Amino acid sequence: MAKKVAVLAVNPVNGAGLFQYLEAFFENGIQYKTFAVSDTTQIKTNSGISLTTDDIVSNLIDHEDQYDALVFACGDAVPQFEDNADKQYNQDMLTVIKAFGDNNKMLIGHCAAALFFDNLGIGIGKKVALHPFIKDVVKGVVGTDEKVVVADNIYTAQTENAIPELIPELLKALETV
Amino acid sequence: MAKKVAVLAVNPVNGAGLFQYLEAFFENGIQYKTFAVSDTTQIKTNSGISLTTDDIVSNLIDHEDQYDALVFACGDAVPQFEDNADKQYNQDMLTVIKAFGDNNKMLIGHCAAALFFDNLGIGIGKKVALHPFIKDVVKGVVGTDEKVVVADNIYTAQTENAIPELIPELLKALETV
Repeated sequence: MAKKVAVLAVNPVNGAGLFQYLEAFFENGIQYKTFAVSDTTQIKTNSGISLTTDDIVSNLIDHEDQYDALVFACGDAVPQFEDNADKQYNQDMLTVIKAFGDNNKMLIGHCAAALFFDNLGIGIGKKVALHPFIKDVVKGVVGTDEKVVVADNIYTAQTENAIPELIPELLKALETV
Repeated sequence: MAKKVAVLAVNPVNGAGLFQYLEAFFENGIQYKTFAVSDTTQIKTNSGISLTTDDIVSNLIDHEDQYDALVFACGDAVPQFEDNADKQYNQDMLTVIKAFGDNNKMLIGHCAAALFFDNLGIGIGKKVALHPFIKDVVKGVVGTDEKVVVADNIYTAQTENAIPELIPELLKALETV
């Protein structure tokens, strides 16, 4: 059976990253649902375009088992994460990521995705691709200079520019075989 | 002075294509304004996400001289173009593309962009990158198998997957020098 993917979009989100995942899923018949890491489904891209996600992250809690994989679509919200860590939607995001990790489901993301996985104790000892700025910040996962790393259930790309190399790996894992 | 770009987004638009341009412009301080090829600013991506552009294409008519370049962001609206060619927003789109072409301004686009340039008599004799399906359909421009072609003022990419190779060429031309 074809896999179903939950896609987290921070606010603001890098549109080039988010839509490389979504259009690839769409073109390959992979089901997906988008969840804003926000109080509302109305969020913005880094580039300032308003878009509407399918739902918000709080509504994904306790429904993680309906999905086979989670995408963390990074964006300019992340450098300000520490100042907003107590916001409910950010706490809900962490809850959701941890639930997917605890169940060994596919975790997918670029840029700072691996930092969140790391902070939640996901992927300990596994190599990851991540933004060069945070390569030495991660503790449990193993930061690399690779563009893309697939390590068991953890699929990471260095930045949104490396997503084209990640997509074929995702499709291979997600498509009906 | 930094250049300003008008970005046409068809409805539905390929989000991966559209946002590779927009995020690159945003990150490099290049001004841009998005125009829906539609009656409203509410359009969708191929992947089904609703987004809001800054304006609609009809409001770009007679204001082309405020911009240095035009991006044609292709999408799933295009295979149905012939059935909708008489819609005012599509006629307005052709008017706008022709105005940029007549003034020898930068024309940028991927996938079927070169077909529209060709139909409007823009870029005659110039090589273009374009979707393989339409390589032999174009008449005035010269279809190629290249991922990216820069021919004078015409900047084309084969598909949205080739945009990463087009972006550096655009930035070189658009950035303040």
